[in-house]
Amino acid sequence: MILDRFKVPQGDVVRVPEAALRQTAQVIFERMGVAPDEAAEATDVLVMTDLRAVETHGVSNMLRAYVRDYRDGKLNPAPGWRLERETPGTAVIDAERRLGLITGPRAMRLAMDKARTVGVGVVNVHNSGHFGAIGHHALLAAEHNMVGVCFTGAGLSVVPTFASRPLIGTNPIAIAAPARNEAPILFDVATSAIAGNKIRLAMRVGAPLLPGWVADKEGRPLSEDTLVHDRSEFLQLPLGGTREQGSHKGYGFALMAEVLATLLSGALPSMLDPAGGSKNHFAAYNIEAFTDLERYLDTMDEMLETLRTAQPAEGHERVLYPGLSEHEETLARRAHGIPLHQEVIAWFNSITAELDLPPLQTM
Amino acid sequence: MILDRFKVPQGDVVRVPEAALRQTAQVIFERMGVAPDEAAEATDVLVMTDLRAVETHGVSNMLRAYVRDYRDGKLNPAPGWRLERETPGTAVIDAERRLGLITGPRAMRLAMDKARTVGVGVVNVHNSGHFGAIGHHALLAAEHNMVGVCFTGAGLSVVPTFASRPLIGTNPIAIAAPARNEAPILFDVATSAIAGNKIRLAMRVGAPLLPGWVADKEGRPLSEDTLVHDRSEFLQLPLGGTREQGSHKGYGFALMAEVLATLLSGALPSMLDPAGGSKNHFAAYNIEAFTDLERYLDTMDEMLETLRTAQPAEGHERVLYPGLSEHEETLARRAHGIPLHQEVIAWFNSITAELDLPPLQTM
Repeated sequence: MILDRFKVPQGDVVRVPEAALRQTAQVIFERMGVAPDEAAEATDVLVMTDLRAVETHGVSNMLRAYVRDYRDGKLNPAPGWRLERETPGTAVIDAERRLGLITGPRAMRLAMDKARTVGVGVVNVHNSGHFGAIGHHALLAAEHNMVGVCFTGAGLSVVPTFASRPLIGTNPIAIAAPARNEAPILFDVATSAIAGNKIRLAMRVGAPLLPGWVADKEGRPLSEDTLVHDRSEFLQLPLGGTREQGSHKGYGFALMAEVLATLLSGALPSMLDPAGGSKNHFAAYNIEAFTDLERYLDTMDEMLETLRTAQPAEGHERVLYPGLSEHEETLARRAHGIPLHQEVIAWFNSITAELDLPPLQTM
Repeated sequence: MILDRFKVPQGDVVRVPEAALRQTAQVIFERMGVAPDEAAEATDVLVMTDLRAVETHGVSNMLRAYVRDYRDGKLNPAPGWRLERETPGTAVIDAERRLGLITGPRAMRLAMDKARTVGVGVVNVHNSGHFGAIGHHALLAAEHNMVGVCFTGAGLSVVPTFASRPLIGTNPIAIAAPARNEAPILFDVATSAIAGNKIRLAMRVGAPLLPGWVADKEGRPLSEDTLVHDRSEFLQLPLGGTREQGSHKGYGFALMAEVLATLLSGALPSMLDPAGGSKNHFAAYNIEAFTDLERYLDTMDEMLETLRTAQPAEGHERVLYPGLSEHEETLARRAHGIPLHQEVIAWFNSITAELDLPPLQTM
């Protein structure tokens, strides 16, 4: 669910059919040297993310970044898949700079194989490109009667509580869990006060940043509404913003992600190796190893329905659970197209022209 | 690390030696019908928690609650240990209302056994009494070259984002990870804006609650400093406080704990079964299954030293990492005694008199 201030203004919206977006993204990946099956995997993660209205991590911000990184040699379009350590329940993979949109589903499927055998599977990946919205990878497990969990260590934009410069990344954490009739739980958040892409998004739509969301360049939390003119004027804060409001918890969750994703991969955190790429921890829990699946699904539905139908507080329309609006948005966007900012369409037109491809079809 | 406003005022402090506190707590548990080895386990969790200065979860608030619950029959002093499901990597235990201070270490040791065999071990426990500060259980793994993680589903005091009544618990999350020369990482937080015990602690020391920490009885977040006269006048908010400040993230972390601790245990969340007791998820990751232990320890020390020695922001003395102040406090309190509020000493005097035990020895 995205705050209204971040939505693309109606006058700037161009709607694109899901199939058209898939077709264009697929060929762009292929032109970068990615094999068709891997291009399809990357496209699926990106388009599903836009269908879920997680616009910070969809095609608008990310596809151009991936194109740039393939061209700069930061991403390897055709790497190997190096298994560094393996036990019945665990594995560690060197991704050799493969895009994380591709390593993520592959790692989660390996974790699921292990969970089928020993109840739980954990696969760590390091030296990888960007994983996109990691909730997507967690949801793969939920589609197979498992609970999926991801922790990511990546980036160097967030100032630890009381510090004066960024030493940690936005280090997202995600969980997905199946339900029977309710939407699956899909929780996927940066451990920073706001995702890094939200600062760029706010700049694009002209929305102010709220107090506690960012710090100045000396690490002092800003205490009033602030318009973004230059992304580089701001440092990110951990979830909570200030110590009094719990930033030590956001900072700690970021370190939890760093331990599980980076340290367990035998990799270096970004503060020690800024160019080291993304590190990720994928866990799959086989529900039937823990309890009766039907009982689990009944309880999950009853819990989610209780939340969804709870009386809202004054001034609010309804109570959500994580994944509900993403599920509803997917149905709506499949029916009515994916809204993109006209500036994003202009980028698509320029890249397709440059690569001598047909333009992105709009509605 | 505790905010100054929550510290026991100097004039009210009575210092108690660690050994004396252990001795008195041990016999109180034994008088409740707990076997000596289990009483020693529970005492260890409680006293280590006070040594770490996690006063919300030490003897001051909790021991009297446990005594009350043993006397009311809510806690079973001599239950069985029923293994409901088991695979090479997982197990689910019905704790039969055993105090969580005792089930926690036992469950984590079983998770560690599994992690030695298949790389990772997950043990879920339900129908349990209170687990105390769950970071203690995570730290058991860190003492054996593993990473320990705990998620708890318990209580019914926190209002989901946009809701008007409490439907979730403070559902804490903890991780502990070993270092070589630095203190081990020990992160243990409620997913609510503040721990439930902090409201009682604020009342005891006469400190105000800050904006965004609590809601009124209709679920509206309070927007100014508020003194607590009656605990029941307030509802807790998720970490973040308001939607704009990220309360949907705190709410989501609480549900993450509920899924991993409660749903995977085959148990019901508190919103569906308020008397159902605590549910917990204990995970142990065997570092050597993932990477070279020496490399891990080098990296961890380098990361923690980088954080500890980082230039602080204006107005702050130093940068901490989770577990550093707990480590320092343990050394200081072992040397100079554990500071308790005189009101707590008075409770000890009354319970020891009632049970015909020697009084708690103070310094």
